[in-house]
Order: sequence, then structure tokens, then C-alpha cells
Amino acid sequence: MADYVEGKRPVIEALKTDVPLKKILLADNARREPMIEDILRKARQRDLPVIEVPRAELDQKSARGSHQGVMAETKPFPYKGIGDIVGAAEEYAAEHDGRALVVVCDHLTDAGNLGAIIRSAESVGASGLIIPNKRSARVEASTYKSSAGAVAHLPIAQTSNIVNALNRFQKEGFWVCAATEHSSNEMWDVNLKGKIVLVLGNENEGVSHLVLENCDMAGRLPMLGNVESLNVAQSATACMYEWLRQNW
Amino acid sequence: MADYVEGKRPVIEALKTDVPLKKILLADNARREPMIEDILRKARQRDLPVIEVPRAELDQKSARGSHQGVMAETKPFPYKGIGDIVGAAEEYAAEHDGRALVVVCDHLTDAGNLGAIIRSAESVGASGLIIPNKRSARVEASTYKSSAGAVAHLPIAQTSNIVNALNRFQKEGFWVCAATEHSSNEMWDVNLKGKIVLVLGNENEGVSHLVLENCDMAGRLPMLGNVESLNVAQSATACMYEWLRQNW
Repeated sequence: MADYVEGKRPVIEALKTDVPLKKILLADNARREPMIEDILRKARQRDLPVIEVPRAELDQKSARGSHQGVMAETKPFPYKGIGDIVGAAEEYAAEHDGRALVVVCDHLTDAGNLGAIIRSAESVGASGLIIPNKRSARVEASTYKSSAGAVAHLPIAQTSNIVNALNRFQKEGFWVCAATEHSSNEMWDVNLKGKIVLVLGNENEGVSHLVLENCDMAGRLPMLGNVESLNVAQSATACMYEWLRQNW
Repeated sequence: MADYVEGKRPVIEALKTDVPLKKILLADNARREPMIEDILRKARQRDLPVIEVPRAELDQKSARGSHQGVMAETKPFPYKGIGDIVGAAEEYAAEHDGRALVVVCDHLTDAGNLGAIIRSAESVGASGLIIPNKRSARVEASTYKSSAGAVAHLPIAQTSNIVNALNRFQKEGFWVCAATEHSSNEMWDVNLKGKIVLVLGNENEGVSHLVLENCDMAGRLPMLGNVESLNVAQSATACMYEWLRQNW
């Protein structure tokens, strides 16, 4: 299934950043006003085909009905396999005194949050990130933007079964730690030394029950304010730097 | 000077969250389509006056030219004085084994980032946040949204002179620490115990030279990836939780 960026401004944004695009679809009756001209110029610079199609075809392809006569088709994101991430993490550990970090996002809903987590993960030297292949945010145009380009540097895998993926890392000698507010341990009291898989929950329900049962340990960040909770990307960043601190 | 939220969707967003509003301005020739009807209904529920004005008046008040016939005027944000924040921090320290945190944002440019920092600051139990009164992001509608409501719980002050504000805290026995990638100390090797002012730089240049000269100490978060740097709100969160860890 193809992914599309729709609407004049989003398409211009996608052309400006490094979202890999396949082609531009333009309504055959689209008015050639300045933003459309800008899109055509940028597409030409990137050698990107521009296909004129009946407006009805855009209506049919559009997910949000906000195409404004123009859509960009993105290339499928090159997901890695779990084995690639195991390999990358083992290699990283061998070169970095035995430390390695893999991040698992348990059914995140927001593609922008996913990008922010990818940006922080790449920054602490994580070896990869794993997401479910269903009912989960996945890499799309907004992820490129919020990751500030980090999505091109961090191996990302999709899995049909998070628990199986965790078990595989456990067999390879990784410890799996969930970040959850229901833990009674502060994250800094959990031993995060060495090869760690950090499991992050989704924006509403946190880490799911079944996944939590398969973790070796869990930690929380104290939340002392009146607001319900940190944003998942903020909380992920603090946990990832805690891993780096303990392994520094 | 009044602040405005402009455009149909942003006005609906502002009406849905807790942005304090004064009134709605509606173009006298605005079509009564569903989103406008929704705005009128929500305004009625909140007892908010709706004033019909000539469209030219909206054009004139509009900062972005995207009002679509409707704008909401926000109430001025109730900034506190520096003295209020000193007082709140002293009180917090007395009740929490001598720990207190005040956050200073040195000319942040993005109001959304400001909101994300406010959210994390409130979550670690910070006593207040200080921003410059010029050339800086300040509290506006997008700050309410990205702070997830925390802006209503954290005292925020504006100052005409950050250095003076830092000196005042130093006289009260606070240590001032800058978060800057130019430091040679990791943040976790800096002594953040007790009453701390954490200074964060702006998105592009970081903490300014003059402000840095007035800090007692500085620390950095190692950035090990290919991407240039963490987002300032992510980095702020990791630093604030490091403060909390050392004081826990």
C-alpha cells in the first residue's frame, strides 16, 4: 500500500526535507498558482515525475480529503529485520565496553512522537528501534520531520509479535526493562548496565500487560506535578540518557 | 498588545483547551458553515462574547493572514515577578530537603518548545521558569497546547535582563548551571544537589556568551549520533531529571 503526503504545504515540506518520494500527483485542473509552481520547480530539481490525474483519482487516494489538488507518493520505508538489529547491537556492544541499547515502542499512536523518540535514540547511540506492524504509528512523512533526519540513520524493524522479539533479545543476553509509571522503582535505581532493551508504552495505556509480563525489570520516572504525565518522547529521552549515564 | 489565535481550526483548538480567551472576532460576511457553527456553539458554552467585525479589521489584526474570517483574542498571560519565583523556590527547598529547581530559557524561539519545557519542569517539581521579555518565545496559545495544561501550574516570569536575574538567585544561595554542548563535563558529573538554576539555550546558538560567563558551572549531554543535536525540550527534560536523580 502506498503512502501519500497530501496538500500544498505538506508536499512542499516533504520536498524540502529528506522524505524519499516516488512521484507527484497533480489534479489535471489544478490552478498554476505560486505554491503549485514551487512544487513543480522542486520536483524538477529532484528529477521527480509529476503525473497529471483526474481530481477524482486524488479524492479516492486521499486519506483526509485535504489534497488541494496535489499529493506526493512516498517510497516504502526500508524496514530492517529483528536479526539486523540484534547484529548491530552486538557489534556496538563489542566496540563500546559491552553497552548497547535497543528501543521497543509498544503500540505508539503518534507518528510525530515516534520521530522524536528516534531522534533521541540516535543521539544516545541506540542500535535500533522496534515497532509493531499493526495498530501502531509507523514511519511516515511527519516522522522524518520530527526525527530531524535521524530516521535515516537508525535501523528500524517492524514485528508481528513484540513478546517474541523481546524473548529473542533475552536469549542473546539482553535485559529487558519497561518504562512504566506503575513500577515502584525509580529508573535510576534499576540496573541498566550493559545490553538493554528499553520498552516504551503508548500515549494512553502505557506498556501493555502481556508485554510487561515479559520484561525482566521495570522503572519509572517520578512525576511530581499536577499534570498527568510527561509526553512519551520526553520520558523516553530521560530514560535513554539514564541508560547512557550508567554505562558512561 | 493583544494576542490572537487565527483561523477556524486553531480557534476550535483554543476553545477546546484551557487557553484563557477574551472574545471571538467574526467577519461580518463569514459563511455559517459547520466549523463556524461549532465555534459559535463553544463560545456560547463558555459565555464568550462574539463580535462581528468587517473582514478588513481581521486582515489588519492578523499576523499571518490565515484568519479565515475568525480570530480569538486571548487574555494576557499572568506573568509572575522574579521575587515570586525566588519565594516559591525557597519554600519548596524548605519542604524538600533543600532541593529546588528554577529553569531559565535564554531566548528560546519556539512557543511550542517553551510549552514542552514547561510540561517537563512542572513534572520534576520545578518552582518556576524565567524567560526574557524581548526576542524570545513567550506564552501563547500553542504553549498551552504543548504544555498539556502545565502552564497553568508553573509560575513563569519575564525579565529584561537574564544576567541580573541569575545574580539575584546566586545571592540567595542558588548555583547556576548552564546546559551547553560546549562544556567538557557530562551533566551527570556536575554537582546538581540543592538549589539549582538550570539555564537552557535557544534552538540555534545555545546559551549566549554573556549568560554563560555568569553561570557557576556547565554540563552537557553527550550526543553520539549523526544528527546534529537533540531538540532543546528533549535535552531540557534529560537535564531536569538528572537534577531530580541527584536530589532524590
